Order: sequence, then structure tokens, then C-alpha cells
Amino acid sequence: MTKYVYFFKEGNKDMRELLGGKGANLAEMTNLGLPVPQGFTITTEACQNYYLNNQELSKEIADEVLAKVMELEKLTGKKFGDAKNPLLVSVRSGSRASMPGMMDTVLNLGLNDDVANNYSNNEESKRFIYDSYRRFIMMFADVVKGYSKEKFERYLDQYKKDHNKEYDIELSADDWFTITNDFKKIYYDIAKEDFPSNPQIQLLEAVKAVFKSWNNDRAKYYRKMNDIPDDWGTAVNVQEMVYGNLKENSGTGVAFSRNPSTGENELYGEYLINAQGEDVVAGVRTPEAIATLEKIMPDIYTEFKQIAKNLENHYKDMQDMEFTIEAGKLYILQTRNGKRTASAAIKIAVDMVKEGLISKEDALLRVMPKQLDSLLHPTFNKDVLAKEKWIAQGLAASPGAGSGKIYFDAEDLINASKSGEKTILLRLETSPEDIEGMNYAEGVLTIRGGMTSHAAVVARGMGKCCICGCSDLTIDVNKKIVTTKDGLVLKKGSEISLDGSTGKVYAGILPLEESQISGDFKTFMDWADEIRHLHVRANAETVKDVKTAMLFGAEGIGLCRTEHMFFSEERIFNFRKMILANTKEERTKALDAILPYQLQDFEQIFASAAPNPVVIRYLDPPLHEFLPKTDEEIKELATSLNISVTDINKRIMELKEMNPMMGHRGCRLLITYPEIAQMQTKAVITSAINTIKKGINIIPEIMIPLVGDENELAYIKNIVDETAKKTMKDLDCNIKYMVGTMIELPRAALKASEIAKYAEFFSFGTNDLTQMTYGFSRDDASKFLTTYYDQKIFSQDPFTTIDETGVGKLIEMAITKGKSVNKNIELGICGEHGGEAKSIEYFNKIGIDYVSCSPYRVPVARLAAARAAIIEKMNN
Amino acid sequence: MTKYVYFFKEGNKDMRELLGGKGANLAEMTNLGLPVPQGFTITTEACQNYYLNNQELSKEIADEVLAKVMELEKLTGKKFGDAKNPLLVSVRSGSRASMPGMMDTVLNLGLNDDVANNYSNNEESKRFIYDSYRRFIMMFADVVKGYSKEKFERYLDQYKKDHNKEYDIELSADDWFTITNDFKKIYYDIAKEDFPSNPQIQLLEAVKAVFKSWNNDRAKYYRKMNDIPDDWGTAVNVQEMVYGNLKENSGTGVAFSRNPSTGENELYGEYLINAQGEDVVAGVRTPEAIATLEKIMPDIYTEFKQIAKNLENHYKDMQDMEFTIEAGKLYILQTRNGKRTASAAIKIAVDMVKEGLISKEDALLRVMPKQLDSLLHPTFNKDVLAKEKWIAQGLAASPGAGSGKIYFDAEDLINASKSGEKTILLRLETSPEDIEGMNYAEGVLTIRGGMTSHAAVVARGMGKCCICGCSDLTIDVNKKIVTTKDGLVLKKGSEISLDGSTGKVYAGILPLEESQISGDFKTFMDWADEIRHLHVRANAETVKDVKTAMLFGAEGIGLCRTEHMFFSEERIFNFRKMILANTKEERTKALDAILPYQLQDFEQIFASAAPNPVVIRYLDPPLHEFLPKTDEEIKELATSLNISVTDINKRIMELKEMNPMMGHRGCRLLITYPEIAQMQTKAVITSAINTIKKGINIIPEIMIPLVGDENELAYIKNIVDETAKKTMKDLDCNIKYMVGTMIELPRAALKASEIAKYAEFFSFGTNDLTQMTYGFSRDDASKFLTTYYDQKIFSQDPFTTIDETGVGKLIEMAITKGKSVNKNIELGICGEHGGEAKSIEYFNKIGIDYVSCSPYRVPVARLAAARAAIIEKMNN
Repeated sequence: MTKYVYFFKEGNKDMRELLGGKGANLAEMTNLGLPVPQGFTITTEACQNYYLNNQELSKEIADEVLAKVMELEKLTGKKFGDAKNPLLVSVRSGSRASMPGMMDTVLNLGLNDDVANNYSNNEESKRFIYDSYRRFIMMFADVVKGYSKEKFERYLDQYKKDHNKEYDIELSADDWFTITNDFKKIYYDIAKEDFPSNPQIQLLEAVKAVFKSWNNDRAKYYRKMNDIPDDWGTAVNVQEMVYGNLKENSGTGVAFSRNPSTGENELYGEYLINAQGEDVVAGVRTPEAIATLEKIMPDIYTEFKQIAKNLENHYKDMQDMEFTIEAGKLYILQTRNGKRTASAAIKIAVDMVKEGLISKEDALLRVMPKQLDSLLHPTFNKDVLAKEKWIAQGLAASPGAGSGKIYFDAEDLINASKSGEKTILLRLETSPEDIEGMNYAEGVLTIRGGMTSHAAVVARGMGKCCICGCSDLTIDVNKKIVTTKDGLVLKKGSEISLDGSTGKVYAGILPLEESQISGDFKTFMDWADEIRHLHVRANAETVKDVKTAMLFGAEGIGLCRTEHMFFSEERIFNFRKMILANTKEERTKALDAILPYQLQDFEQIFASAAPNPVVIRYLDPPLHEFLPKTDEEIKELATSLNISVTDINKRIMELKEMNPMMGHRGCRLLITYPEIAQMQTKAVITSAINTIKKGINIIPEIMIPLVGDENELAYIKNIVDETAKKTMKDLDCNIKYMVGTMIELPRAALKASEIAKYAEFFSFGTNDLTQMTYGFSRDDASKFLTTYYDQKIFSQDPFTTIDETGVGKLIEMAITKGKSVNKNIELGICGEHGGEAKSIEYFNKIGIDYVSCSPYRVPVARLAAARAAIIEKMNN
Repeated sequence: MTKYVYFFKEGNKDMRELLGGKGANLAEMTNLGLPVPQGFTITTEACQNYYLNNQELSKEIADEVLAKVMELEKLTGKKFGDAKNPLLVSVRSGSRASMPGMMDTVLNLGLNDDVANNYSNNEESKRFIYDSYRRFIMMFADVVKGYSKEKFERYLDQYKKDHNKEYDIELSADDWFTITNDFKKIYYDIAKEDFPSNPQIQLLEAVKAVFKSWNNDRAKYYRKMNDIPDDWGTAVNVQEMVYGNLKENSGTGVAFSRNPSTGENELYGEYLINAQGEDVVAGVRTPEAIATLEKIMPDIYTEFKQIAKNLENHYKDMQDMEFTIEAGKLYILQTRNGKRTASAAIKIAVDMVKEGLISKEDALLRVMPKQLDSLLHPTFNKDVLAKEKWIAQGLAASPGAGSGKIYFDAEDLINASKSGEKTILLRLETSPEDIEGMNYAEGVLTIRGGMTSHAAVVARGMGKCCICGCSDLTIDVNKKIVTTKDGLVLKKGSEISLDGSTGKVYAGILPLEESQISGDFKTFMDWADEIRHLHVRANAETVKDVKTAMLFGAEGIGLCRTEHMFFSEERIFNFRKMILANTKEERTKALDAILPYQLQDFEQIFASAAPNPVVIRYLDPPLHEFLPKTDEEIKELATSLNISVTDINKRIMELKEMNPMMGHRGCRLLITYPEIAQMQTKAVITSAINTIKKGINIIPEIMIPLVGDENELAYIKNIVDETAKKTMKDLDCNIKYMVGTMIELPRAALKASEIAKYAEFFSFGTNDLTQMTYGFSRDDASKFLTTYYDQKIFSQDPFTTIDETGVGKLIEMAITKGKSVNKNIELGICGEHGGEAKSIEYFNKIGIDYVSCSPYRVPVARLAAARAAIIEKMNN
């Protein structure tokens, strides 16, 4: 018989698959002898069972839960529903991966009229118990029954207004008693049945509700964003309640063993005296910094600090802990590896290596490659920032620079962002409903809440710039207006800039500058380079991008898309002339005019990349992409080319294609217009010779796109070789160059042994290869892929993460076939998968020599390659 | 050292690769002791050498040719350039495959002033020799030097006008002497050098010219049309001249050992007295039927008849022979397996089996599957034909029915045909330049020329209806008008109908009727069925097509495209309503309205196909294909659906795709709109139950298109199974049905083991699979594929003949993977390759169970499958 329920003392930290992260850590702490309120964990298998069982708790599980309640009663000496000595519990979710705030929680479970009555021996107790009871009723109605909180809240607001009270704190014990009874009536009105007084029933219902919350919309969205599988399910933790709101010698807080924003090795966190945990997290009251606790409760502070250090040493990672002080006694409610900003992650990892706590390999495995993104994105220009006057300051909750238009509402913001606007989410405080909006925003700004508020935690996890608790701003929620201390009024659409590293808010959009890899970040990346063997190149075709790529550690240019060089004004004119030419002679003449530009570009790129290699891809897109689209542009072109509008329109019609992705492009263009390949070869070889003559060493790699048959490549390689030979003879200088091909059509992979006869390298264009293998047009597939994710037909986007079982099989086939003909063939990746960590791990495994990605993803790829090498070593 | 030149006696019929067809047969006949004018063959390897050698004859080859000339001089006792006893030769092409009239020929080679002078001892000889000499000069100028014949022809016309002569025959020996001298002057004017008098030089130049003619446009076009590889090259035959125009006891002719039009076992052919071979072939004079030769030259006739029978027995095939009678002596100039109409091919094959000459297998290998096409196309309705009065009658040169508009010019005709017109090519006589036009025409009609004229031979080869020598019509070539005997005037664009089986021409377009498989054709097809093991199904979705398919021997329907059923007026309305629906409810309602139609269709199809299987493919094309295109149609739809034009246009815009081929179609539609799959399943199961209840046995096969992932198929199969279960329960009847998938995406092949878990059959959609594997959009690829063929990058169209080395590898992979999971999985082909002979041979080899093709290709596929089985057996 499967065991579905574990007492905390029965588990340990390695059981997170079964017990969830929270449950496993509660078990571990219990066994470490830490002061943990006792309880038990209902396993993730029980959750799976619940879903298989048509969203019902099986009798087997229900019985086991109730049996465990009896054990807990024995352990605590308290009893469910006992008026004298009642057992009150919290019921919380806890999945394998942390999903903070995404699922539901029920607190104060076990309360009923008997218990409350019996507890009301004085004003203070009565006030406390009925405040808790009314909270429980509302929470149960909302979370377990799915009734809206609105009626309860509206009633409470009205009650306060009627009794001329503003804050909850002003209400008396009797007020809460009345309110509790009225809440029960409201519950009855909605539910058409009494609020359940039996704690067993309360508990079983709550457990089901937590299981159900695994599939609420925000949890699903969070999982999708964080690649968490839908079939893991959540565990449920049932734990004795402790109360931080019992008296003035009570309190509750959240703390990190190191600073999650900067990585500094200092106890970092916040607490509230006489409050419940939800008050801290929800950001309703702005809490105190943890350091001040030392003065108020020195013993508790010392005890907690020691526990924090012990937990960090035990888990060998920075810990994020929740604690409660109930009547002068410290309880640890939760510990977990703390979420942190990318720079904190790096500092902590580097420090811990220096402290001898972890190895370099551990350090590299600690930082997710994706996290580096936020370190690489531009920051505000420091000189500008120094001169600029800020308009408000809050807590520097998550570093980074964010500029955009203010939105007060996540839905509005998402729409604006989708239409291309840069946006800032401005909220009194954020709640889990805002998570999708936060993801779309450039930055998040809240008026209330501390460094551990929802907004702060989620933004740090996303690597999104965030300023919290910005009380310099006054918000009028109804009018959707905020006012600064100086009286500046900001409304929907006003432009502001957030500096997440200082907490300062600026008016308008500030200019940005490149970020730098230095200090701990550099140390960390150097370790990655020591360990990895997969090389990393960049996709770039402007000198600026090539320089950025080199700055970020690229070992060459893996994809220089020559067509991007045709778009500036004087070039596009001649390129259009080429397209509109009626004869080979006219075409050649137009191309001759482009040659000097292309030559100059290549020289600059070679100089910026040398001595690293540069892979130059010849013209790829269909010609119609270069022709004007509007009538006006067409007229203008006709005038400047001295031909008729009719002729241009005729050519546009001729070039129109049903399925341009599978049309006249890539090597097909070079075959029909060999003079393009001739011009491009002349430019590559001449510029390489000029570069070499300056004493800079370079071996250009010429790459032919969209090859599907060896004869295509042979035909073009012949043109390239003939032109190169002639160019070298004309310039009286022999140089080395390589000719290779993209493998981006299924047929190219299938025929790789034949194609390899003419190719010195293969570069896998995984974007097109994915399109053709799936038969998905990237431009059109989003229409139905949403349904695919919803219906769990696909678990990941094949355009983001390489499809190992399909597309990957073609790549592996091409590698084997290619190597069978030319064992030294150079193998690269130049699709977007080249910058994605999971895909890089795969490419490392199958023997790719290098990946090429956008300059900003180069460090991501370097780290991912190092992690792949470590994982590979661990598996061998 | 390679031997490049073979005396006829050195070769044999099995050397056609080296000596070409004509050379090998001349060798064979020489060794059989037949009266063949002697000579030698320059090999196809010499031709390849010529092209490799920059279109020059290597000294080695030239020397070998001249050495062979000396041997020929010894053998004949004649000498090149000898005034007394000159050796005159013909120089003719002869490739491995017959390419009649496509390449160049030079006759009378060896003539010069000395020879001509010496031969002019009487008026008759002088007339003959100068007539030959002037022909030689013009031919040499035209063929060898590439000068236009026009100047020569214009001069001759002027000469006749000046001398008041109308026909060549009226010119005297002195006239020809003058003309010859003037021809030499014209030659000098163009060439700036004298006409070469040295026969050695004449010969070497002529040999080069023949080699060069391998690559003239019409030869290239012919090869492409007939799948003849470009790299074979041609051999050259140098043969002593014999003259059928020497005296009245001379003549020349062409004959077949059996009737090439009907297949009757009778000597069949034509001859002209006192004429050269070219006069017969060119159709300038209308020749006499061969049977009349028996009266004029009984001995020659008997001798020839015997030779014909001997050759047929020797080659075990019907022979096409050229002969010349020079001063009472018979020479055989050529024999080859005769081209014949499809019905003749079948009759001859069946007769020869009955005569014990060949086996059934031989018979099946004798008829090219492609040839059957012409037998299957409709013929004129016999009742109508009986009542209709014909307007002219000519020779029934090639059977079949053809109706269309008259064109006098191949180029005009091609343009008209490309724009969708049905056309008839009407010419005085055709020449090789007309071949492309003949291919586009529905039928060919010539005023002059016999059963073996160019038009007749080529039309029979193409299986195209043709009437020759229709002297009932008078043509005015300049005005482009023909007049019948009754004075009816036909001009460009007039509609006529040709009955190629009777030679009768009708005015207007006559109605057609289905052809029948009966008599010899049926015997032949029965033999094919005995031998083949690959099954043949048809693609059909109308009752008419299903019936035709069954008539033609289909063993089921392999592809019933349900979307074709949505296009009739009342259906498209509801289908559009479905597309424009905003909710699932509206969509379901619109689909409910279509259900009864679809149900009725399926019932009729099941009834027509039973007990054969029917594979029903669910909705495949993108929805936008069903929406109206013009503003008017949109307006109409808006009115009838009572929605706004704006809403319809909005939906049209939403459905627009960048690459529809890779967009929202196939199973992707069924996933986003599961109610379509539900409706279609309900229709299939209900109609199958209704059919079975009538006592007709049927197992419907439900096919899901465009699957690329097992989860897609699993998801839809679940919908199908649930709906089927419910439908069967509602109707209280359990039936068997199959669910399978198309394999038409590369990924489907790569993931076939997973997909096979949910599929009872795979049907390879080779059209889409070819598109995706190559990354070729069929709609767009023609733009560049022309260049691919010209540049010899591709030798065949991958959309016509399956690409065995690329696409085929995916198919083979899918078969292996599919069988590893389900060894009984049913394997079919439903792309257009399923009806193409070469592809069928391949499918047979790799273990496909059935091919499915259009009804008219079913017999083609049956024959191809039989041939594949025979070839397979021969190879084992």
C-alpha cells in the first residue's frame, strides 16, 4: 500500500519529489532539531491520485490524513475541535520547485464556534480569536469554496464606515464577534449551507482545495514560464499554527542568510511585531529591517542568526527563511534556497568557493544561465544619471534599468506591450494575479511592501528591475494617478525610468549604456571558460555588434548575415536596381556598385573579430523582401531608377510567393543569379587580403544557405572557387578560406554524406530546420500552438528549446554522415537554440564544436556550455 | 587506349550504350548477313570526350576516324574524293535511346567539284549529281556551320521564278550546275572562306556537328520529356550512301513489321519511288502504302517481307525499318524496335505471348506504364459520332479523341494552352521545332505527310491523337486559313474535334465518354494482377470517381479528401458559417447542418467501393481556402449570414498566413476545433453502420493528416474513439473501424515509433513530405527549378518521381520504426508519386502495401506494380 502522508520527522531534504520543497525542508529541519511547529506532509503522489480520481480524495488518503491528525494531537497534546485545548493548523501547498504565492493556503483551520467561545476569557483573547475566526471564514470561502471575497470585504468596509472606524486595529473584540457571525451568514447566503464546524471536514476540504490550486491560471502560467512540468503536482503541508500576532512579544518575519539583491554575506530580512506572516509577504504594512530585531529581542536575534548560519552550512546555499515569534518563543516555519538576483547569485557563488563551502563546479551549477540575461542588459548611462534629478525613491528591490510608460493595470499593460510599447507596472502592491503583467513590463514599481514583498521576490526571480515601498509617491487608485512629493503628477502613459540598483525613480526615458563583465562576474565566467569545451561564437553583422560580442567573450562570428548590409539608403537603391535588372549585365553592374560597401563592411568586421574566425553567410532572403511595399515608395523608386511604376509592380508580382519560407531564397538565388555569389566572393576575398596585408590574421569561412542537395553546393562552390582564384590572382596574394554550408533543410541532413564532400563545415540553422521538420511556419504557428500548450500536446516551444527527439535526430544523423566523409568537419549551430541553455547541453553532448548566438547571449552560452561539460563529467 | 570507332561488323545489338541504338542495330544486321551499306560507328564515349575536350575532336579520335575511312575505302573499293569512284557517305546521330529527328544528319558527304564534274557524263547523271551536290552544300552550311538555310532557299525560289519554273523537277542538269556554283558563292559570302572540298575535312566537321547537336534545344526538351539523361551523349554513324532517287527502279521507304497504330500483325509502311529517305520522313510528298510495292517490285517486296519477319523474330519485338532500293537492289538502312500506340503495344505484346515468342513477363515489360494513359482517356461518345457529319478525313495516324481551338503556330498554341485553352495544332507538316507545341495540344492535324511522317511518329510516341496527310483541307499558310472541300473556312481559334482512330475531322467540340478496359487490354491487365503483390487504391471523393476507379481495377479508396465535399453551394454556406462562428456552440450548430450531407456522401462512397476499404482523410486545408475572395462574394456572404462585411474581412485577415503550407491546417485544425473531428467521426461511423445494416461489409479507415507528434494523434484519436463509442451506442451497433495517420512531415517519419503506438496504418503523403524535406513550396519552386534542370543540378522533378536518396530515406525510416512497434501496420502511399511508374518500383521494393492514385492512373499503377514485381524477381 502506498504511503501518502509523512510526519515531518519521517522525511528529509532529499525527498522533495515526494514531499515538495517545503515539506522536505520542514522534515530536514525537524531532524536537525530546530524549533519547527510539528505537522505532516501529504505527498505529491496523493495529488496525482486526486487528479486521476476525478478530483476527489480517495477514501484511503482521507483515512490516512485523519489518522495522522490523531498522531499530531498526541504529539502536541492539543485536539481538533477541543474547546479547551484546540489544535489549529495551517494548510499550505509545497511543490517540488518553489512557486511562491502561486497556489493556495488556508490558515487558522480548526476554528469553530465552540473553540472561539471558550477562548474569549478576556478582551484581548476574544479580539484575537474572532479576528482569526473571521479571517478563516473568508479564506475558507475564497480558497476552498471558490466564492469571491468581495462580499465579505464590502461588508467589512461598510461596518467600519457605519461605526466610524478607519483601521482594523480600532475594532473591538465585540466588533469582531459581530463580524464573525455576519460572515457566517454571508457564507450561508452564498453556499446555502452552514459554515462547516467540523475540523476534520474543514481539513479534507482544504487539502482538496490546495491540490486543485495546482491548476489555477497563475500557477499554470508560472510553470510555463519556469519550465516546470504540469504533471509534478503539489504536496500539502499541515502544520500546527503559531501566532506572531498574539502579543507584543510576538512577531513574524522573513530573512535571507545573505543579501538576495547584492549577495553580501549579511543576515538580511524584515519582520513585523504582532503580525501574521501574510502581513509581511503581502506588503500591507512596511516591515522593519531584521538588524533592528537585535535591539528589541537580543536573544531571539542571536538564536535566529545562528540557525540561519547553520542552515546555510547545512544546505551549502543561501537560505530564505520564515520565522514566527510566539509569545517570546522562536519558530522556524520554512527554509529554502533563496531566490536571488543574478549579480547576487554570482557573488554568493564566488564567495562560497572562496569560503571553501563549495567547488567551482558547484558554483557554476548554482547560477542558471538564463539569469545572466539581466546582467547583460544595458544600464543607465552613469554620466547622465549623475546629472539627472530623481523624482522619488523606494527600496532597491531588484537591480536593473527599466524605462517605459506607466500602467496601473496588468491587463492594459499586457495589451500595450504586445503592441510594442515599453511599459512599467505601477501598483499599490502586487499580487499573484499581476505576474503575467510583470513579465511583460520593463520594470515594476510599488508604493507599499518591503524587500521580501511579492513584487520584490517575483521581480528578482525574473531578473526584472523593481522598486518597492516607494512611499514618496501618493497614489489615487480610483483616478489612476500618482503624485510625487514635489507635486509632479504621473498618470497612465507617463514615461518614467527606474534604477533598480538605487531605488530611484526618474521622469522620462533615460539613455542606456552597455554593461560590463568585471569583478566577481568575470571570475565566474573565467571558471566557466576553464571548464567548458564547446566554443561560443556570435551572430553579428555590424561592427558595433561584433565588438559587443567580443566584449562578452565570443570566440568568433558564427553567422554574419550579409543581407542585413543591404538595407542602408545608398545600398538598397543599388540592390533594388539589381533585382529589377532585365539582363545579367545590368545585374552585374548594379552589384558592382554594392561591392565597395560590402568590401568595407567585411574589412571592419574582420578587424574587429580577428584573430577569431568569421562565418559569412551569402544572401539568404527572398528578393521581394528588398522591394518597396507602399505605392509612394514604389513611385519614388520608379522615378530614381527611371523606369515605370508598372514595371516595378510587375516585378513585385513576379516575385510574390505562396510560401516564401519555402521559395526562391538561399542558395536557390545564388544558382539563378550566380553574379551575386561572384560579387560576394570578390568582396570576401579582397577584404580578407586587405586585412591580412595589414598583418591581421584571418581565415574567412564562406557559408552557403538552404542547401538541400550536394549538386547545389558543388555548383556554387565552383563559382566561389573560380572567383576566389581570379581575385587572388588579380591581387597577387594567395590566402586560405573555407567553404561550408548550412544544414537547415531535412534533406540536407539526410544527404549529409554527399554534401560533406563539398563542405569544410556544417552550420546547423536550427530555426529553419525546426520549421521544415515540423512543417510549422514560425510566423503562423502561434495561432495553434497556444492550444497545443493548453492541451498539453506540447510541453515546450520547439523554436526555443531544441526538439531532441525529432529535429535533433536529423542533426545527429548529419553529424555522423558528415564525419564519415570528413572526420575533421567543423560543426556549428547558428539558430536561436544556440543561445538557449537546455539546447546547449544537448549540443555539447552530441559533439557540436561551437554554438553561435546573439551577442547578449554569449555569456549565457558560455555558462551553459560549462554546465553541460560538468553534467557530462558527472554522468561519465 | 580506348577504342573510339567500330566497324559495323565489330559490334552487336547489345552494345547500344557504346554504339547507340542505330549503330548497334546496324552492327547486328551486318552480322546477320543482311544487305546493309557498310560503314562505322563513332562511340558515345567519343562524344563525351568531345564535350570534356571543350567541344573539340581530340587528335586521337580524328586519326582513328580517318583510319576507319581508309578501311571503308578498301571494303567498298571506292575512295574519298576519287573523281572516278568516289566514296560518298551519310553522317547520322544515334544515341542509346531513340530520339527521332532531334539531332542532325549530313548526307552526300564526299562530294566536291572534281567528283561532280567527273560524274556528269550524261544529262541524267549530271542532274542527279548537281542536285545532290547543292543539297550537300546547303545541309553542310546549315547543320555543320550553323548558317541559316534561308539565303539558299530564297535564291532557289528566285531562280525558279526567273526561269519560270514551279517545281524542282522542272529544273535541268545545267540549272542545278548553275545553282550549285551560286550556292558555293553564297557559302563564301557568309563564311568568308571557300566551301571545303576535302572530304576528310568535311567528315570531321560533320562528326563534330552531330556531337554538338546532342545539346540543341529540341534534343534537350525531348530528353527531359522522355527522362533521357543528358550525359549519355550520342554516337555517330558514318555509312556509305545509297540512292533511292537514282532512277525509276530506285526508291526508299519506311516500314513496321506490325501495324504501329493498331498492332495488327501485318507489314505496314510506305515508300516513294525515286526519292531520298528524307522525302518520306519530312512528309513533303505523300507516299504509297507498302502493300502496293508487291505489284511494282514483287521480288524486292518478298525479300523485304522476309527480312522484316526475320528481324522481328531475332529481336522478339516489332521492328521499324528504313530501306532504300538503289537501281533494283534492296538495302536495309536501319532497324529498331518500333514506336507504337499504347493499344498497339498491348495487342502486339498479347499476340506475341500467344505466338509463343515472348513470356507474359516479357509482355508486361514491353509496355511502359505511362503509355496506358492514352488508353484511359475518354473517347468520343459513339452515338453522337454516328450522327455527326465529318468535315474532312486524313490518315488515322495516332488514335484518341482531341477537341480544341485551332492554332497554326506552336508558340501561339503553347501560350494559349498555358492560359487554360484546349488546343489543336494544325500544320502543313510538322518539324522537330513543333515538338513542344505538340505536347501541349489536345491533338495534331497535318495536311501533308504519311503514317510515318514526323507528326505521326512523334504523336504516337506521346500517345497523342493525330491525323496526318489530310488533303481534304486546303491551307493558305500566309493567311492562316484552311478550307474544307465543302468550302467551310477554319481559322485560328475555330473549334474542331479529331478522331485519331478513324482520321475523321469534325467541326466543334464533341462530347466524350469513359474508355473501357476490355479485350487484349483486359487480358494484359489480368496478367499484371497475377504477378504484382503491391495493391492499388485510388484517390477519390465523388461517387463518379469512385466508380471510375473501381472500373479501372482499384482495390479500394486510399484517399477520400473530405474537404472536397464542402464546396457545393448549400454546404459551403454552412461551412463558412462554421468558420465565422464566434463560439463553440455556433460552430457545432453549423457543423450539424453539414453532417447529413457528409453522411450521405460516405454512404454512397462505401456502397460504390465495397467490399474494398475506404480511407477517409479528415479536414486538411487551411480554413481561409473556404472563404470568399472577391468583394462581391464577401458582401453576398455577409447578407446571407446576416453579419457585417467588416466582421468577415476581419476573420479573413485573421486567417491569412505567411506560409499557409506550414500553417494552421491538417490535424492542427482538428485540435483547435475538435468539434470538426467529432462531426466527421459521427458521419463516418453512422454511414458505415447504415451501410453494414444493408448487408454491405465495410471497415472505414479514418486518417488524420499532418501529424508530426504522437501527442497530436493521441489527442485526436481520443476524440474519434469517444465519438465513435457514443455514436455506436446511440445506434446500438458495434462496428470495426481503423484510425491511422498520414506521414507527410519529416518529423512524423523521425518519430514513427511513437506515432505508431496510436496508428493502425501509415499513409505516406509524398507531396507534402517532398515539400518539407526539400523546403520547396510546390507553388513557387518552378521559378528556380528550370535553372536547376538547365544547370543539371537536378535530373528529375522530385514532385513527379520520388526522391529515393532523401525523401525515400525518411519513408524507409518510418517503415522500420513503425513496424518495430506494430509489425502488421498497414503502409500506403497517397501522394502523386503513387501513380508514377518509377516511384512505384521503389515503393514495391521497400515494402509498401498499397499505392493510391487518381482513378485514371490505376491501370498505370497496376502495370507498374507488376513490372516492379518482375524486376524484383529478376534481381533476386
